[in-house]
Amino acid sequence: MNPLHQLNVELGDRSYPIFIGKQLLDNSQLLTDYIKGSSVVIVTNTTVAPLYLNKVIQSLDSVKMRYDTVILEDGESFKTMSSVESIIDILLKNRHDRNTTLIALGGGVVGDIAGFAAAIYQRGVHFIQIPTTLLSQVDSSVGGKTGVNHPAGKNMIGAFHQPQCVIADTSTLDTLPERELSAGFAEVIKYGLIHDAEFFDWLEINIEQLMQRDYKLLSQAILTSCQTKADIVAIDEKESGLRAILNLGHTFGHAIESAMGYGNWLHGEAVATGMVMAADLSERHQWIDPSVKQRTIKLLTKTGLPVKSPVEMTINKYMDIMAIDKKVDRGIIKLVLLKKLGKAIISADYDPLLLQKTLLES
Amino acid sequence: MNPLHQLNVELGDRSYPIFIGKQLLDNSQLLTDYIKGSSVVIVTNTTVAPLYLNKVIQSLDSVKMRYDTVILEDGESFKTMSSVESIIDILLKNRHDRNTTLIALGGGVVGDIAGFAAAIYQRGVHFIQIPTTLLSQVDSSVGGKTGVNHPAGKNMIGAFHQPQCVIADTSTLDTLPERELSAGFAEVIKYGLIHDAEFFDWLEINIEQLMQRDYKLLSQAILTSCQTKADIVAIDEKESGLRAILNLGHTFGHAIESAMGYGNWLHGEAVATGMVMAADLSERHQWIDPSVKQRTIKLLTKTGLPVKSPVEMTINKYMDIMAIDKKVDRGIIKLVLLKKLGKAIISADYDPLLLQKTLLES
Repeated sequence: MNPLHQLNVELGDRSYPIFIGKQLLDNSQLLTDYIKGSSVVIVTNTTVAPLYLNKVIQSLDSVKMRYDTVILEDGESFKTMSSVESIIDILLKNRHDRNTTLIALGGGVVGDIAGFAAAIYQRGVHFIQIPTTLLSQVDSSVGGKTGVNHPAGKNMIGAFHQPQCVIADTSTLDTLPERELSAGFAEVIKYGLIHDAEFFDWLEINIEQLMQRDYKLLSQAILTSCQTKADIVAIDEKESGLRAILNLGHTFGHAIESAMGYGNWLHGEAVATGMVMAADLSERHQWIDPSVKQRTIKLLTKTGLPVKSPVEMTINKYMDIMAIDKKVDRGIIKLVLLKKLGKAIISADYDPLLLQKTLLES
Repeated sequence: MNPLHQLNVELGDRSYPIFIGKQLLDNSQLLTDYIKGSSVVIVTNTTVAPLYLNKVIQSLDSVKMRYDTVILEDGESFKTMSSVESIIDILLKNRHDRNTTLIALGGGVVGDIAGFAAAIYQRGVHFIQIPTTLLSQVDSSVGGKTGVNHPAGKNMIGAFHQPQCVIADTSTLDTLPERELSAGFAEVIKYGLIHDAEFFDWLEINIEQLMQRDYKLLSQAILTSCQTKADIVAIDEKESGLRAILNLGHTFGHAIESAMGYGNWLHGEAVATGMVMAADLSERHQWIDPSVKQRTIKLLTKTGLPVKSPVEMTINKYMDIMAIDKKVDRGIIKLVLLKKLGKAIISADYDPLLLQKTLLES
C-alpha cells in the first residue's frame, strides 16, 4: 500500500524521508527506489526473519538485485562489536563493494548494529531502516545515531550515519509482543513530556485504544513522535545542545539497563522508570507541579510500564554507571530535567543532595 | 620554534591548520591551543614513545592537563580493530568523556588507528595528528581518512574524521630509518605524477639533497605535498570522484602489501612499485610518452624504492585481491592511471588484456 504519512528529516544533502503506514513491505518500489548500487545486505534477527524477511527478498527479486542476509541473535546483549564484525565479514567474503546498501530489518538493536556497520564499512555505505518495533519506529530509526555497547557502558562505540529512508510499516506491530509495544510507548510519552504538552493530553485520552493497536491512532502517534524528533535533529544533528533533551530518563535508564544486565530490562522499561526519576528530581527542585509526575506515573502504568527503580539499584550503582554517561562533562553529570510539562532542559545545575534523594526514594 | 609554514585544509566547519617546521614539539602552545576539553589520551607506539612522548607530556604538564597514554606495538600488522578496542578500553576505564582529545603521535598506522578510535568513541571526539614519519606528514595525517585493516583487505573498516590540527615537526625525521624516509618519498613523488609536473621536475633536481634530509628542502617538499592533498580534499572530502586520484599505484600496491603480509613491504614501497605499474599500463594504452615511466623509475630508484613487482605476485593473486578494492564498482576494478605527467584520471575504461600484460611483466 501507499504510505498514510510521509515526513522528511531535513539535513541538507543528508535529508531523507520517513514513510508511515500499513503493509508498506508489500510495496516493492518504496524500498527499491532507495537502494543505491548493485547489491544489498539485509541485516535482521532470528525473531524477525521468519516473519518479514521474505517480503523484503520479494522486493529485491522484483528488480533482480543481488543480496546476502545476516541473521543476528535477538537481544540487546548481542549489540556488540563482534556482531558488527560478523556483518563486515559477510560483506567482504561476498565482495560487496562501496556501492552496496545495508538494510536493517528489525528493532532498535538491529538498526543500531547494521547502521554502525554501514557507517564504518569502507568508510561508509548507504543503508535503509525498516523498523519493526514501535520503539524503533518512533525513535532509534530516526536521527542517524548508530552504535554498539561496550561492557563498560551503553552505546559507547558508534557514529552518526543517516539512512537513505525509513520505512515504518505499522502492520509489523501486529506481531509485536505486548511487552515490547509497552516499551515503545515509553519513548512516545517522552515526546509529550519534553516538547508537546498537547500530545501528552492526547495520549492520556487515547492510551487504551493505542494499546489495542488501533491502526490510525498508532500511525498518528508515530507521525507526531517522528516529526518531533526530526525537528530536533534538524536543529542539532550531532547533539551539541538541544538534541540532548531526547535523552529524558535515559541517564537513569541506561544505568538500570547496564546494572541489571542488558536485555533483562527492556530499554523502554528502563527509560520509563528513568523519566519518573527525572520528574521526581525536577519536582524536588520545585521546577514542576507535583501533578506532572503523578500524570506521568499514571500514563506509564496504564501502558504497562514500570515506574519504580529496581531494589537492586543502590545509590552507588547509579553513580558509578552514570559517571561514564556520554553527557558527562568535566566530571559533572548533566541531566535532562523538566521545567514544565512539554519543556525539558539539560542541566548540571541541580542539587546533588536532591539527586541522592531521588536515587534513594524512587 | 614557530612553524616555518602553515596551511589550511578548507572544509567549512571542519577546517584545520597544518603546521610544518622544525622543533615544533618544543612549542607547547602550538599543541595545547588545539586541545578541546579537559583530558587527553596520547596514542603512540613502542618505537616513537622513547623518542618523543616526553615532549608531548611536557606540553600537557605546562597547562596541567590530565592525560593517559596508550603505547601500541609498532607495525602495519597491528592496524586492527583490536588495537582500536584497546584504546577504547583505556578511554572508558579512566572515564574520559566526550570532551576528551586523542593525540596520534607516530606514523600513518598510529594516526589511522587513533583517528578511527576518535571517530567512533562516543560517536566522535576530537583528535590531533602529530605525524613523525615523512609518509604520514605528507599523506596519511591530512584529509581525515581513518581506519584499520581486515584480514580480507586493507583499510576496509574506517571513517572520515578530520583532526583539529596537524603538527608536522620535521625534526622527528632526523631519527627516521632510511628505509622509511624512502617510503615517504613514494607519496611525495606521487603528487608530482598526478597533479604537478613542475614539482616532479623539482624533485628530480633535488632528490639527492632531500635524501640527505636538507631541512629547508624537506619542509618545502612537505608543504607542496600537503597543499596538493589539501586542495584535492577540499574539493572532494568523501572521495566521490577527484580524490580517488590520490590512490595512484595504491590498488596494485595494496595487493602487494596484503599478499606479502602486512609490514613486509612498507606501504610506500608497495605504492612505488604500484605507480610504475600504473605508468606501465598507461603507456600500453599510449596515453603517456614512454619517458614518463622511465623518469618515474629513475626517480624512485634514486630514492631507494623498489620498482619491480615481487616474483611471488601472480596475475591471480593480483586479481583476487584487487577485486575487493574500495574502488571496485559493480564488479569492475577502477584504476588510477596517467594521461600525462602531472595528470591522473580514475578509469574503468582500460583494456583488460593490457592489464594482464602489466601484471605479468612488471
